Amino acid sequence: MTVGAEASELVQRYRGVREDSLRLCEPLAIEDYGVQPMPDASPPKWHLAHTTWFFETFVLKPYSADYRLFDPDFEYLFNSYYNGVGKQFPRSRRGNLSRPTVAQVRDYRAYVDEAMRPLLDAPAGVVEKRTILGLHHEQQHQELLLTDLKFNFGNNPLHPVYRDDRAEPERTAVREPTFSSFDGGVAEIGCGGESSFAFDNETPRHRVFLQPYMLADRLVTNGEFLAFIEDGGYTRPELWLADAWARQQSGEAWRAPLYWRLEEDGWYEYHLSGLQPLDVDAPVIHVSHYEADAFARWAGARLPTEQEWEAAVAGGGNLEQVVGEAWQWTSSPYVSYPGYRPLPGALGEYNGKFMANQMVLRGGSCVTPDGHVRPTYRNFFYPSDRWQFSGIRLARDA
Amino acid sequence: MTVGAEASELVQRYRGVREDSLRLCEPLAIEDYGVQPMPDASPPKWHLAHTTWFFETFVLKPYSADYRLFDPDFEYLFNSYYNGVGKQFPRSRRGNLSRPTVAQVRDYRAYVDEAMRPLLDAPAGVVEKRTILGLHHEQQHQELLLTDLKFNFGNNPLHPVYRDDRAEPERTAVREPTFSSFDGGVAEIGCGGESSFAFDNETPRHRVFLQPYMLADRLVTNGEFLAFIEDGGYTRPELWLADAWARQQSGEAWRAPLYWRLEEDGWYEYHLSGLQPLDVDAPVIHVSHYEADAFARWAGARLPTEQEWEAAVAGGGNLEQVVGEAWQWTSSPYVSYPGYRPLPGALGEYNGKFMANQMVLRGGSCVTPDGHVRPTYRNFFYPSDRWQFSGIRLARDA
Amino acid sequence: MTVGAEASELVQRYRGVREDSLRLCEPLAIEDYGVQPMPDASPPKWHLAHTTWFFETFVLKPYSADYRLFDPDFEYLFNSYYNGVGKQFPRSRRGNLSRPTVAQVRDYRAYVDEAMRPLLDAPAGVVEKRTILGLHHEQQHQELLLTDLKFNFGNNPLHPVYRDDRAEPERTAVREPTFSSFDGGVAEIGCGGESSFAFDNETPRHRVFLQPYMLADRLVTNGEFLAFIEDGGYTRPELWLADAWARQQSGEAWRAPLYWRLEEDGWYEYHLSGLQPLDVDAPVIHVSHYEADAFARWAGARLPTEQEWEAAVAGGGNLEQVVGEAWQWTSSPYVSYPGYRPLPGALGEYNGKFMANQMVLRGGSCVTPDGHVRPTYRNFFYPSDRWQFSGIRLARDA
Amino acid sequence: MTVGAEASELVQRYRGVREDSLRLCEPLAIEDYGVQPMPDASPPKWHLAHTTWFFETFVLKPYSADYRLFDPDFEYLFNSYYNGVGKQFPRSRRGNLSRPTVAQVRDYRAYVDEAMRPLLDAPAGVVEKRTILGLHHEQQHQELLLTDLKFNFGNNPLHPVYRDDRAEPERTAVREPTFSSFDGGVAEIGCGGESSFAFDNETPRHRVFLQPYMLADRLVTNGEFLAFIEDGGYTRPELWLADAWARQQSGEAWRAPLYWRLEEDGWYEYHLSGLQPLDVDAPVIHVSHYEADAFARWAGARLPTEQEWEAAVAGGGNLEQVVGEAWQWTSSPYVSYPGYRPLPGALGEYNGKFMANQMVLRGGSCVTPDGHVRPTYRNFFYPSDRWQFSGIRLARDA
Repeated sequence: MTVGAEASELVQRYRGVREDSLRLCEPLAIEDYGVQPMPDASPPKWHLAHTTWFFETFVLKPYSADYRLFDPDFEYLFNSYYNGVGKQFPRSRRGNLSRPTVAQVRDYRAYVDEAMRPLLDAPAGVVEKRTILGLHHEQQHQELLLTDLKFNFGNNPLHPVYRDDRAEPERTAVREPTFSSFDGGVAEIGCGGESSFAFDNETPRHRVFLQPYMLADRLVTNGEFLAFIEDGGYTRPELWLADAWARQQSGEAWRAPLYWRLEEDGWYEYHLSGLQPLDVDAPVIHVSHYEADAFARWAGARLPTEQEWEAAVAGGGNLEQVVGEAWQWTSSPYVSYPGYRPLPGALGEYNGKFMANQMVLRGGSCVTPDGHVRPTYRNFFYPSDRWQFSGIRLARDA
Repeated sequence: MTVGAEASELVQRYRGVREDSLRLCEPLAIEDYGVQPMPDASPPKWHLAHTTWFFETFVLKPYSADYRLFDPDFEYLFNSYYNGVGKQFPRSRRGNLSRPTVAQVRDYRAYVDEAMRPLLDAPAGVVEKRTILGLHHEQQHQELLLTDLKFNFGNNPLHPVYRDDRAEPERTAVREPTFSSFDGGVAEIGCGGESSFAFDNETPRHRVFLQPYMLADRLVTNGEFLAFIEDGGYTRPELWLADAWARQQSGEAWRAPLYWRLEEDGWYEYHLSGLQPLDVDAPVIHVSHYEADAFARWAGARLPTEQEWEAAVAGGGNLEQVVGEAWQWTSSPYVSYPGYRPLPGALGEYNGKFMANQMVLRGGSCVTPDGHVRPTYRNFFYPSDRWQFSGIRLARDA
Repeated sequence: MTVGAEASELVQRYRGVREDSLRLCEPLAIEDYGVQPMPDASPPKWHLAHTTWFFETFVLKPYSADYRLFDPDFEYLFNSYYNGVGKQFPRSRRGNLSRPTVAQVRDYRAYVDEAMRPLLDAPAGVVEKRTILGLHHEQQHQELLLTDLKFNFGNNPLHPVYRDDRAEPERTAVREPTFSSFDGGVAEIGCGGESSFAFDNETPRHRVFLQPYMLADRLVTNGEFLAFIEDGGYTRPELWLADAWARQQSGEAWRAPLYWRLEEDGWYEYHLSGLQPLDVDAPVIHVSHYEADAFARWAGARLPTEQEWEAAVAGGGNLEQVVGEAWQWTSSPYVSYPGYRPLPGALGEYNGKFMANQMVLRGGSCVTPDGHVRPTYRNFFYPSDRWQFSGIRLARDA
Repeated sequence: MTVGAEASELVQRYRGVREDSLRLCEPLAIEDYGVQPMPDASPPKWHLAHTTWFFETFVLKPYSADYRLFDPDFEYLFNSYYNGVGKQFPRSRRGNLSRPTVAQVRDYRAYVDEAMRPLLDAPAGVVEKRTILGLHHEQQHQELLLTDLKFNFGNNPLHPVYRDDRAEPERTAVREPTFSSFDGGVAEIGCGGESSFAFDNETPRHRVFLQPYMLADRLVTNGEFLAFIEDGGYTRPELWLADAWARQQSGEAWRAPLYWRLEEDGWYEYHLSGLQPLDVDAPVIHVSHYEADAFARWAGARLPTEQEWEAAVAGGGNLEQVVGEAWQWTSSPYVSYPGYRPLPGALGEYNGKFMANQMVLRGGSCVTPDGHVRPTYRNFFYPSDRWQFSGIRLARDA
């Protein structure tokens, strides 16, 4: 591939991803851009600004001669968690920033895009690398933007509709799941450079030893999860991890997945298309790792390890719903791969420092941008988190 | 006065107060309407809707035949604290309501104003009484709207300007305060019907016995409060009430009034007109009762009781800055007057149920609507609250 | 009175009070001395040591030449809240101090008593004054010691008995209460020196103006309070102050007085003599101010002000159960009397700094030492406190 | 082995372990038995009773005909976390149980020991198995008893001495650590039945794939950790995991290991033998996983995985201080081994339900009972826990 062609491709890709972010916001009212419904969720406006800050901070400032900051205050306001860059505006107060306005944030985006243009036309290697990282970063935030928006809308008593033209898959009554068997032995896990892009946490590629195992060929459905509820699943301590049960004994006990609502005529579930009667054949989503683990125990199964999941998918196992429906909780805590090296400098804070107390999810959800994920992709959240599009694939010992 | 003339006056007053609320919002961006920067402060949009809800709930629903609710959900969303009306949307989450939009809330206001019109043209006694109550209620929220907006803007690192055309009073260097003496003996306190309107908590008029006392003829200035700071006032336990000192020993210790900022070149204070160098001759505002009490002790004085304040003002004492600058903390806990009777029904929740743990403030501030207050007016907040326009007038035993 | 006689009386009184403290502890196991069942309650051992620390700090150190501290660490360990004396061991961790042992604390008491002897034989005026203050202080802690012990034992599932030889009053079925009427007008309140001793917060004696009022001649009974419960009193927001109702809506809702236990065969109440079937004719105790206030509203009455209570009692009103059963919540926040001056020096922290957020109780309870209280005596606790022996006397407007 | 011989050995072992628990308490004052200095630490009395409850619940009740409970309340009071057995007295309030007294708990121990005797003389298989489990359980609590006592004494300003006759190892100035290399490849991990006893979480034995690695032959010393402190280690975000750094930014920032005290003449460390000048050559103990991880990063190393640790030790690697000094934090979250099956019934709650959010420690400390640990032994605590005798062994990629 010649440099010119490559550059052109990069420009197109940059434009495409950046426009995607704005397109996702088209259905929003100005009022929707600023809401932070809980500390972990950020306002759409913040996502739009932070992804722009990423290019400004990691590409323009170091590599664009004479670049002038759009607004020096933004360096602080839209830094998420990079201590190597400087102080950060407190995460839990992002929803208080009525200023800058949406229009100003759009100006910020346009200003940075304009400044990126000459760099992308003939990108030095590091500029290209960081730009591609920035685009993957922005795709992650595209999913988060919708995830956080859903948390906002889903908790508004008016149940606003984000977009009702979404074609819901026509589901036929699902059959019983089949458990596919996979051999044990030494397997290769992680990304070794064969992919055009991977996050540092997917590297290095390395060998692991697996015992023979089985994976369900589809995800757990709402109907199956309802059976768990009706069997008293949420109130039986023997099904729960101790930390999860302590939470159930507190004032915050869960009784159903996050967006389920029990009305007089039965269960409903809030979707971005509005409040809908529960579809028992759809995969259950918005469950925590704790709920996924308890469900698996109730079902006489377990969650897969992330290595089992990856080996099965990479090996072309006969699995459905690998991506496009829900992230799939694994039983694997998020830790570094042997020989892991974070990126140098402040970018080293991207992934490595979160390797504590979180669990890996694999797959990809219905709001994950096309082409964003890979079989080696590692998503990670705390085991009590439920606002992600997170579901359950069961595993068993062979 | 004929009925027609009376009605006409009521209509005009209704229109005037309702328009005032919208006029206060003119400088706002749409983004500013939704922000709730702390649980006690409400978004401007909520103030606009709640004051409208008040007329809908207490006037239209009971007294307007065939009135149809604008939106049944609003009954829940914009009920502040009236258990007698029904459940309330949680106060701390008002900032999460991106919907209804500002435009929808304006429609709500117009709809209710339209429905109120025929009632106001020929008001029954109770309609007139409740409408007047509703207008006083809305004036209270006009002050709160600006107070809450100031908390939002004042904590935004961009220090947005609400309106920079506010004519700051030209202050000349203030002279030493004079303490005026007042006789003791039996005094009459509270409202006995001589005023055209009073809240229930100002009644009944009753006798109290006062010891002779003295009141400062002006409020404490920023310069005087700065001397307290520089004398170590915030770190000397002997000046503070025990509960206040416990707070100072926690992670939330105060070091200056709420909107003071120490920059490299000295103290600044955030105003709705922006961040300004500290005006040492202006009255100190945004101090808590705890700070006011500590300052008074440091100054060898004390705070006045609400009875002392009222008797002095009602008696035509030679006091300045009684209204128009700052609410003045008294040493009086907010309790009922002897023989107090709350309004009947849900409106009885307006004042009486808050008679615990709060302190009375007297006077009126620079953001109090004209004509809203009286010498018998009782404002009340928790002793640790600082986001109100609250200042200090000193008292002494005679 | 000659000096010798006076000294002798003081010595006897000192001995008597000091011995009373130890006698109260006779039924305790060593294990009981160290328990702090909640941050506000202190272990018996701490009470024994702190009351001794009071004499050491305020009498021996300043007035006993050559006095050597028993243990310099005790200055810090047993200082309750006197910032003027120095730092304090954190209140909430008093229960962690297994050392010093009970035997060491008894040695401390004996050591200080021995050192006090020569001072008491020929007391200078200030020594006598401070000693008498120290003895009243110790009597307060005698009541607290039993109050805190009850909280410990009452929450132990084994329901230990402190002393079962306590003669329970033989109660006959109580008659309906009578409301005695009292004239309004100017009344004198507070202590003016006619008593041999009073705390600073009872002074100065001053005039107040009272409206005519009525007081119930006896306290509210368990049976009457049970009727409130059975009428849904705890779940009806219209009966409660806003702060109290917020508490009821939290995870800590009350459903009955502190030591009531609902068993299969009815209500029981824990006493220091063990768990007993509820005596419906006994005064209700261990209710908060919030519960007392809600009960009064439910009963169509109100709580008395502290001035009403004192004027009635001082005037020889025909009231029963004034002392000896329960402290009686008033509707009066605990504030200073006009012209109040705290004691000089660190002793000034005894009372004045607590004049915020607390409510006055009048009377005296079944665990108040004989001779400790007066009609002018002001006890004070937070409105949500329930572990004191606190009950209800109703009042009405005349 | 004949039955008789076996029984006799079991009896002796039972007696030995049970007596060890009492011997550990010999230096205690009665007051020390009841203190719970933080929710995670239990009072010595509770440890003595709970270990007895274990035998009563899991051996005597099911297998001793006609056994009568010592006290039915103890079933609730001394159940730690077995939901399968019944409700549990709240963990955080164990320190409030002044009753039962120490004497009563000793009676309880004697009563249960007496009842166990006939069973041990001729143990059925399951009785023997559960008894052995109970003895290992009691040994774990022997270590916890001292660990919790140290937390109590170490936070008492009097710095009580538990036992000052402990022979401190004579340490010579330590040399630089050597990193021993270990081959990668497939290794066998866990217990496969070759040991006379193992907890369920050590099973089944299974294969893993290791990359080549290196382990330090000794533990990190106090002197080395002091260099980390003096290099600003506690205040440099790049060294810390995100969750750990968030903690450092809160009001609870750590500045040194748990029992270090900076006095005017240098660092001291509290030991059970009292406050001692810091021994720079002794292994650092009482650090959290977060501190261990930050130290390792600062040192250009990392923590070992539990598999690396076990393979090295099991393979006879040339390592010092494997047991007897400090538990060694690994980088491995505590999860189940492939094919793990918890014990059946309530005993299944022993280990498995804690497999979330905790990290594995390997080795054994100076307060671990002799003979209690094995190379396959897995200890586990939360990454922020510091009150265990936990230290650091460094690892590196080969």
